[in-house]
Amino acid sequence: MPSSSASPAACAPPNSPTDNRMAGQIDEFDLIARLFAPLAAGRREALGLLDDVALIDGPDATQWAVSCDTIVAGVHFLADDPPDLIARKLVRVNLSDLAGKSAVPRFALLAGCFPRDIAIGWLERFAAGLRTDCASYALALIGGDTVATPGPLTLSLTVLGELPRDAALLRSGARPGDHIWVSGTLGDAALGLLVAKGGVSTLSKAHCDALLQRYRLPQPRLALGRTLRGIAHAAMDISDGLLADLAHLCAASKLSARIDASLLPISPAASAALAAGIGDGVATLAGGGDDYELLFTAPPSADAQLAALAAQLSLQITRIGRMDPGRGVTLVDQAGAPLLIARTGYRHFDSGAA
Amino acid sequence: MPSSSASPAACAPPNSPTDNRMAGQIDEFDLIARLFAPLAAGRREALGLLDDVALIDGPDATQWAVSCDTIVAGVHFLADDPPDLIARKLVRVNLSDLAGKSAVPRFALLAGCFPRDIAIGWLERFAAGLRTDCASYALALIGGDTVATPGPLTLSLTVLGELPRDAALLRSGARPGDHIWVSGTLGDAALGLLVAKGGVSTLSKAHCDALLQRYRLPQPRLALGRTLRGIAHAAMDISDGLLADLAHLCAASKLSARIDASLLPISPAASAALAAGIGDGVATLAGGGDDYELLFTAPPSADAQLAALAAQLSLQITRIGRMDPGRGVTLVDQAGAPLLIARTGYRHFDSGAA
Repeated sequence: MPSSSASPAACAPPNSPTDNRMAGQIDEFDLIARLFAPLAAGRREALGLLDDVALIDGPDATQWAVSCDTIVAGVHFLADDPPDLIARKLVRVNLSDLAGKSAVPRFALLAGCFPRDIAIGWLERFAAGLRTDCASYALALIGGDTVATPGPLTLSLTVLGELPRDAALLRSGARPGDHIWVSGTLGDAALGLLVAKGGVSTLSKAHCDALLQRYRLPQPRLALGRTLRGIAHAAMDISDGLLADLAHLCAASKLSARIDASLLPISPAASAALAAGIGDGVATLAGGGDDYELLFTAPPSADAQLAALAAQLSLQITRIGRMDPGRGVTLVDQAGAPLLIARTGYRHFDSGAA
Repeated sequence: MPSSSASPAACAPPNSPTDNRMAGQIDEFDLIARLFAPLAAGRREALGLLDDVALIDGPDATQWAVSCDTIVAGVHFLADDPPDLIARKLVRVNLSDLAGKSAVPRFALLAGCFPRDIAIGWLERFAAGLRTDCASYALALIGGDTVATPGPLTLSLTVLGELPRDAALLRSGARPGDHIWVSGTLGDAALGLLVAKGGVSTLSKAHCDALLQRYRLPQPRLALGRTLRGIAHAAMDISDGLLADLAHLCAASKLSARIDASLLPISPAASAALAAGIGDGVATLAGGGDDYELLFTAPPSADAQLAALAAQLSLQITRIGRMDPGRGVTLVDQAGAPLLIARTGYRHFDSGAA
């Protein structure tokens, strides 16, 4: 358990002088660390509020990984996205957290805040999407709350996944010399959002559709996560962009990471988009949000085993760098020269729609 | 386990012809039953989505009662309510669900949607309130999500409480002949909301403060809930108003209830308010929301034991009626004549601010 690295004592005292900045001027992570981490009260279950899940005891030497993610219309999805896809994105965004910890999805609770004028037909399509993915992932909806809101559609899902006790892959487990891996390809969803917002006229329909699909319907890498148990030292899903999330993994593991930009996996559609000047090159790959791929570290001795595993799962995984002593994340070009990019992932209180 | 009374097969098929009404025209309970209950997939943990919690297995013959309640500014609290009290109401509303099931609070996950221009100072006061109640109730915050919203402040809490396996008090356990009991007094919070909205000039400040306090800071009846284990046949907390919640208990237990309006417990402040023409008489007592008292049924043979228990806890409990075969809830006057009242509790998609 890594909770000693995240003890409440390490946080700023909650009674420090009142801060008059607006929340929009700091980021989600600072906020959590400063205000909420002390409320974890040193409980091992909380992992210091520094990981994607909490871990509570289940029956017979199992644990429940519990996670809760919220999506808001106009922030995390577009209000006119198809309702079934909104539901499925909600499920998948949450299951991606479980995948990163190697937990098997079991249960969900939905807290739905629906605008009062929403049509029943819309809700029916939303429920149909939920049903599709609950069936796909053997997830049972066991509770929740439904309220009317005068604001935008706001959906929170709490998911519970099962895993053997102390088997969860954590952000804090990386070791110096570990290779850094990612599943799938990066940047597709960030480019898909640009497509969804319109104004991308220079890309083929097939490529647009591929990117849009990646934005709207993430693929939680559950089979990979489960298989990484006992192989990977640390893992998490990439939701805020590779560099931002890797920075969290480095902080939790008290290590640094060095990423070779030329190794970042890219899809044909993303490649075509970047070639057409859409997006922001490597910044989009390494900093764009909503990838929902797995980021993990494993000892070099596991390279061959991981290659075999990827083949077995028919899922691309790519070695992109290495963990080292020190702090921070460095992105380098093929010659080893550091690359500076402006945007390092989606900061929840920084900007508008992601 | 009562799940057979709530099997998905009993719900309208999710593929029935598209319904073009707005969600505002039906109520939360219909919505859940029609759309979401089938997603419980017959899992015993869900209790058919008809109770206040889900029950999942914990270690060593324990269960986790899991509940999730959401509060929205302008709907469930006023945006200018003191932030520490908003946090504490959020905690208490959720713990009240655990109290009604006789579970002991352990963990919480907070999904907070904060307006982007919220002041850090506000958040600090919010966190301070959260800290106060986490300490009071030995509750640890073990996870959650923090996002920015263009809409109103929206707060979901998922709470987990512990209890021995199969010891939870359910809505479905009532038996014919059971006496119906409530804790505390009714209607205070509904009257407190009227005070909070202003325009109540005919009531003393002491009474106003007492009612306001009941609206802003519910008292989850955790000690009572825990003690009722093995005594009560059925229990739940009253959040939507006595009559509405009792109707749910009746439906889950497949019984009817008869309540003597003259027995409804009333506080001195509520009594003074009703006498001054504030509120709507017995409709406010029996139909006003936000009471967060416990409603439970127990065999007549437990009357003396319950009286002793109330004395021991220094908590008023009042016998208000009886469970019988049949369906529905009847409110009668002292002479036994049925009373008709217009409003039977807060319907989440019916009206504006509660």
